[in-house]
Amino acid sequence: MPVEGYAGDGHFRQTYNDIHILCQETAKRIKTEFNPDLMIAIGGGGFIPARIIRTFLKVSDSPESKPRNIPIQAIGLSLYEALPDTSEEVVGKEVIRTQWLDFSTLGDKNTKYGGLLGKRILVVDEVDDSRATLSYALQELQIDVEKQLKELKVSEEERSRIREATKFGIFVVHNKLKPKAGEISKDVAYFSGTDIEDLWVDYPWEMPDILKHDELKRQDDEMAVKAK
Amino acid sequence: MPVEGYAGDGHFRQTYNDIHILCQETAKRIKTEFNPDLMIAIGGGGFIPARIIRTFLKVSDSPESKPRNIPIQAIGLSLYEALPDTSEEVVGKEVIRTQWLDFSTLGDKNTKYGGLLGKRILVVDEVDDSRATLSYALQELQIDVEKQLKELKVSEEERSRIREATKFGIFVVHNKLKPKAGEISKDVAYFSGTDIEDLWVDYPWEMPDILKHDELKRQDDEMAVKAK
Repeated sequence: MPVEGYAGDGHFRQTYNDIHILCQETAKRIKTEFNPDLMIAIGGGGFIPARIIRTFLKVSDSPESKPRNIPIQAIGLSLYEALPDTSEEVVGKEVIRTQWLDFSTLGDKNTKYGGLLGKRILVVDEVDDSRATLSYALQELQIDVEKQLKELKVSEEERSRIREATKFGIFVVHNKLKPKAGEISKDVAYFSGTDIEDLWVDYPWEMPDILKHDELKRQDDEMAVKAK
Repeated sequence: MPVEGYAGDGHFRQTYNDIHILCQETAKRIKTEFNPDLMIAIGGGGFIPARIIRTFLKVSDSPESKPRNIPIQAIGLSLYEALPDTSEEVVGKEVIRTQWLDFSTLGDKNTKYGGLLGKRILVVDEVDDSRATLSYALQELQIDVEKQLKELKVSEEERSRIREATKFGIFVVHNKLKPKAGEISKDVAYFSGTDIEDLWVDYPWEMPDILKHDELKRQDDEMAVKAK
């Protein structure tokens, strides 16, 4: 499958503006189809997409009120501690938690029950490579939800209603079209900025020479236009 | 004081590459003068600078080993909940914690005592405006350090030694030269990408039209060159 702006040298280059525009475009779909009220950024890769997409996911509580930011909580997950030069996942390695949610502040300001319950939660990362990290994050979050549901002193009917109202979604800037090591439930809404081949993504925040990187990307784009 | 690339319309525009290069340049000084082993990103503003500067703050455990990322933990602090359209601080408002450190994972992998003790901790945010958020963060982290010190079963001498070894630093992309509402201890190392007048900073991640923003910035730069 041809990839827009890819010149065939194994590097899929992205500028900051490429990422910004992908986040902005995808935010429209996310707002319409999922409408999150909490973001969970998987650090460090999810930090930049989460901060950018927050700009485009603002919510208005009433027609008169100014739009407000939806809160972001960060979690730290690492699959690649032994490979510090990569920002991408390595299949089959153990996921290490370096930070988890702060439930003391995930309060009941926005929902009746607090924590994750009743919320529409968008998990954000830069790339869906092997899917192992995302799959781990979603599983663990689901365990937290079940724990919080169990602690609620409500009828079984009400408990089911709240479980039903608690929704998860995923936003990644890039999804690599390849066999995935991790699975994600079909109940989870899935949004990728764009789907790409199994290429090495050169993210701008990894670049020791950002101006040269942008120039290479400009050349990639030119070659892609000529090839059409 | 004149500001590089400022055209006098009240907006100080920054492109993503401006931010990237400021982080990269400042990282050199931070590595030489402070050499952090943990970053604390103040969300949402600190997420992007923290992720970028991580690239340039890698550490090598030995001459043979590949450089590894220093860990980032995120905290959420908010001064401006009522002003969702700003990414900057409002003086005198209460600081709200939306997330704090996860001490369960701030383990003793890198230091003998775990938590914050004995670490060189770099707190990262986008802008030092009123200094209220930064001042709050440092105070609260210092309280955590004292609490952790108190729980240690060591001699008073050892306790003093560990307190002494625990260092804080600050990195902000922009520091506004203006009277500050919050104070920061002189023991805290302070690094800003650049010092600016009390101008409104247009951060790229806030921009609904990033290409237009970049064009305006290019015009600002041109005018600044002509004015010289």
